[in-house]
Amino acid sequence: MTAAAPDLDLTVDAVRLTQQLVDIGSVSGEEQVIADAVERALAAQPHLEVIRDGDNVVARTHLGRAERVVIAGHLDTVPLNDNLPSRRDETHLHGLGSCDMKGGVAVALRTAATLPEPNRDVTYVFYACEEVEEVRNGLRHLARERPELLAADFAILMEPSNAGVEAGCQGTMRVDIVTRGERAHSARSWMGVNAIHGAAEVLARLNAYEPRRPVIDGLEYREGLNAVFVSGGVAGNVLPDECRVSVNYRFAPDRSPEEAEAHVREVFAGYDVTVTDSAPGALPGLSVPAAAAFVEAVGGEVAPKFGWTDVSRFSALGVPAVNFGPGDPLLAHKQDERVPYADIELTESRLRAWLS
Amino acid sequence: MTAAAPDLDLTVDAVRLTQQLVDIGSVSGEEQVIADAVERALAAQPHLEVIRDGDNVVARTHLGRAERVVIAGHLDTVPLNDNLPSRRDETHLHGLGSCDMKGGVAVALRTAATLPEPNRDVTYVFYACEEVEEVRNGLRHLARERPELLAADFAILMEPSNAGVEAGCQGTMRVDIVTRGERAHSARSWMGVNAIHGAAEVLARLNAYEPRRPVIDGLEYREGLNAVFVSGGVAGNVLPDECRVSVNYRFAPDRSPEEAEAHVREVFAGYDVTVTDSAPGALPGLSVPAAAAFVEAVGGEVAPKFGWTDVSRFSALGVPAVNFGPGDPLLAHKQDERVPYADIELTESRLRAWLS
Repeated sequence: MTAAAPDLDLTVDAVRLTQQLVDIGSVSGEEQVIADAVERALAAQPHLEVIRDGDNVVARTHLGRAERVVIAGHLDTVPLNDNLPSRRDETHLHGLGSCDMKGGVAVALRTAATLPEPNRDVTYVFYACEEVEEVRNGLRHLARERPELLAADFAILMEPSNAGVEAGCQGTMRVDIVTRGERAHSARSWMGVNAIHGAAEVLARLNAYEPRRPVIDGLEYREGLNAVFVSGGVAGNVLPDECRVSVNYRFAPDRSPEEAEAHVREVFAGYDVTVTDSAPGALPGLSVPAAAAFVEAVGGEVAPKFGWTDVSRFSALGVPAVNFGPGDPLLAHKQDERVPYADIELTESRLRAWLS
Repeated sequence: MTAAAPDLDLTVDAVRLTQQLVDIGSVSGEEQVIADAVERALAAQPHLEVIRDGDNVVARTHLGRAERVVIAGHLDTVPLNDNLPSRRDETHLHGLGSCDMKGGVAVALRTAATLPEPNRDVTYVFYACEEVEEVRNGLRHLARERPELLAADFAILMEPSNAGVEAGCQGTMRVDIVTRGERAHSARSWMGVNAIHGAAEVLARLNAYEPRRPVIDGLEYREGLNAVFVSGGVAGNVLPDECRVSVNYRFAPDRSPEEAEAHVREVFAGYDVTVTDSAPGALPGLSVPAAAAFVEAVGGEVAPKFGWTDVSRFSALGVPAVNFGPGDPLLAHKQDERVPYADIELTESRLRAWLS
């Protein structure tokens, strides 16, 4: 533990606590100071067992309740973009990490400290490196190395969701489609085969594609199949012999990655398709009693989650999970990210009501 | 003049002279040594007036003939590619510049030195920096600064053409076609417009395009319209808002650059088209008496020239011009470039017969 870690006062209101957290800069890979502060503040609570693993901090109650729930949030942010320190206006807290996701972390910390006897046992998980490459992800590390810490009947990931419940998440897959040709001088183009021209049909299939909109547990998921990169070319006077189209498929959680891959290969039948990246979705799991009870208790609208989030890690562990946190997810990673005070307060009161 | 310039013996056979020239490396920008050697060898001929301008050397007869012809070749080569010094096998001389175009330069030098009284006045032009950006081109420099040196009834550019006559040359134009969209997270693709998908129609038009094959002076020119580069993409999870297709149009010399541009704009009507590069073609001009006489004298097949060459500079000065030199143009710029002895000998004997 470094001496530099400031004291966090978990008894102040959640907005002020959010602001304290925002002003402890914690770009991915540099979470030690904030993890130290979180660890120390939680260790001061006699009703919590606190476990430190790298820059991940886990705190849990042991009340012998019939159910255990995980409440989780990541401590890191994307890189600084001239958006620290925080600033407040009448309705919003502005600054790096305010939306994604220190508002949610503050609510979890406040709840951990001030609700010593929740009606369900709770495992609070604060983790590092969510905003960078998957292999560094702190929740991934815990899931692989210490899965017993994540064992639960239900999980709440406090990613921004406008203080409502966003259930499950879609899967994501990237594939490269490569067309090939034969080089020739462009002054004698009939001697070659233009690989860029060969990509016309790939793009035409993308244009003609009709994404599915399956309804799962009453939620409509909207898929998407999109080129995210295209590249090809050798020189200004040469017919190119290769063109690469990188396509991102966002698929509803009723499809496994294997089914998603089979589908993409069918769409691009006849082409050279290579999967470069893939992450499964997470079913909303709203039919599980703990999840249904949560949705009923918080009383909000339930929406499907389109973007991929760490809820899928819980799903992979057999733990139904939802996203539920303050802030608009469309503002995540924006320079002007911000979080409404009202969202923070609403999220906290709903969570507290459910656990009381 | 540097002391390092070797003596060139213009009385040896043209193959040996080609080899001497190849072994004087002369990558573009480093032509001083070869230009010194050429200047000195020509200055030793009492029947020639020799003019040096930078690393360009002009030598001309003043016999008061009814016609004047230019015989021209560039002294530079593309960069070294582990292909020096030269080497000989039974049929070919191998090495950097052997094909492009020191075989032709050797024939011109031999003719200049050993034919003191040609039946037409001749202006021999040896120039620098043909293989690099147009603004450095030695022939361009002479055409702009000393056009009187290039005044003639007819010009022969000794670029490789398999010892036959390749007449005129096609023009070339590059345009960028940019499609635009609107960025969005790929998990919510319905919020945006994918600019790469928008390029499908551009590629479809290229695929559907039927190039012209106009016949000019009995020669069929084959045009071509080809994508040479394509690029687009922001991040693996973002719908791109811009996609750029770079297209190279090779157009027959019956079209001016202005007509070529209008045609390309018509093909891509509705798109944002920017011309990035353009060079006019050159009409074969075979109906001009001097040209017709040359073609008849050398007795070879006449073919159209597809690639752009400096003949278009003569064309722009009102001087009909053809390509006529030893070597296969398809071997130019290749590591294993080479020239057949037979081509060098045939080119020389044909040129000498025409001028005798």
